[in-house]
Amino acid sequence: MEERPKRLALIASKGSLDQAYPPLILATSASAMGWEVGIFFTFYGLDILHKARLPRLRVSPIGNPAMPPPIPALPMLKVPNLLRALPGMTAVATTMMKRWMTRAKIPPIKELLDLCIEADVQLFACTTTMSVLGIKQEDLIPQARCAGAATFLDYAAEADVALFV
Amino acid sequence: MEERPKRLALIASKGSLDQAYPPLILATSASAMGWEVGIFFTFYGLDILHKARLPRLRVSPIGNPAMPPPIPALPMLKVPNLLRALPGMTAVATTMMKRWMTRAKIPPIKELLDLCIEADVQLFACTTTMSVLGIKQEDLIPQARCAGAATFLDYAAEADVALFV
Amino acid sequence: MEERPKRLALIASKGSLDQAYPPLILATSASAMGWEVGIFFTFYGLDILHKARLPRLRVSPIGNPAMPPPIPALPMLKVPNLLRALPGMTAVATTMMKRWMTRAKIPPIKELLDLCIEADVQLFACTTTMSVLGIKQEDLIPQARCAGAATFLDYAAEADVALFV
Repeated sequence: MEERPKRLALIASKGSLDQAYPPLILATSASAMGWEVGIFFTFYGLDILHKARLPRLRVSPIGNPAMPPPIPALPMLKVPNLLRALPGMTAVATTMMKRWMTRAKIPPIKELLDLCIEADVQLFACTTTMSVLGIKQEDLIPQARCAGAATFLDYAAEADVALFV
Repeated sequence: MEERPKRLALIASKGSLDQAYPPLILATSASAMGWEVGIFFTFYGLDILHKARLPRLRVSPIGNPAMPPPIPALPMLKVPNLLRALPGMTAVATTMMKRWMTRAKIPPIKELLDLCIEADVQLFACTTTMSVLGIKQEDLIPQARCAGAATFLDYAAEADVALFV
Repeated sequence: MEERPKRLALIASKGSLDQAYPPLILATSASAMGWEVGIFFTFYGLDILHKARLPRLRVSPIGNPAMPPPIPALPMLKVPNLLRALPGMTAVATTMMKRWMTRAKIPPIKELLDLCIEADVQLFACTTTMSVLGIKQEDLIPQARCAGAATFLDYAAEADVALFV
């Protein structure tokens, strides 16, 4: 009966490189299916809209026991936590993740975000978090629209799928 | 046609200080909009209902590469993981987060929880997790209502928005 | 009017032992209530379907300040991060978690997964992540069905509850 498009409402709350992919991949996939999509960036997820921080998203080499082994052919080889805490290991893990993404033909985060913008995905920046983290509107990309939790809830109430990432 | 209020169903599964804010902020926002809200506290999230642990929720200084820099004016300055693992750094990160929240006029977790109680937000304590973590009903605030996953699923099935935080 | 069963759509994106329980417990609970359930395993969550990695899921002893104290009778005793980073502490935390689960009569992850299979829970393996992490279909249990984000979104659009874990 009704012919409105389906809608996906996402909250992106994480700002590490590996956790920035899922909301953007879900958003671009849904857009490609003709869905309306809105993403509410909150807490560390705001870094994805942050002009200076977006290019510097990183993967944590520690606190993530599920992180794949550095040498896929030796799946049982794990790097001990103490070694992972050494200076430089965050850079190693980040470089590794980016290399895997390129090999799998996943666009970099910046390109995924550009795809979202081209597809008219709504990019909400959580005003409460901006205030907490001392982030100003001019720190964010111009497509970011400042909004509170109430705006997101209204948006999500009409969604077919809503997910907190 | 129908005039029942909208409903928000949340799962709060995280117990670090920074990850305790999102479910409580969403809950109080939805309540203020006239929504019915229920939160199912499970795994580490149970600490939010735990009388002795609630005042001691902390922020991890490691394993979170998106953690904002200690000096906002120097956004590129990041604290190396090995330094973050030093004794005392968890306390530093926790104090820093609390200061930011106060500056942004976000009530402390305890007050957010009190706002939820005043607004009749349902606070479900996951019985399975209680058993796993050895938590007894008397360890929790009196408003906590012990319930299993089935109770939450029934509640969420009638919700307009359901999120796992 | 309609008599179709309720449906739960889950995304399992985490691969640490403690974070593998929630999606499987929700799935088996919903199945027991007569719901249709589908789980989309993506990113580190794919380890749950990975024949070689499933038996080796671990708990991180660091980066999780909410991790319960090692001695429940002394709830204020916390292990400092630097100690937690020592070799062997991941094994200690993993053994501790498994012991708590057994005490609470929660089946091990492998058995929960078997319960899901017996209950015809759909187990989707994210093809994008498989490509990123270099995981092949033969690395996964035979019940895993390779699928993209679009398949999950179609499935979730008809769900009564959809959650990203």
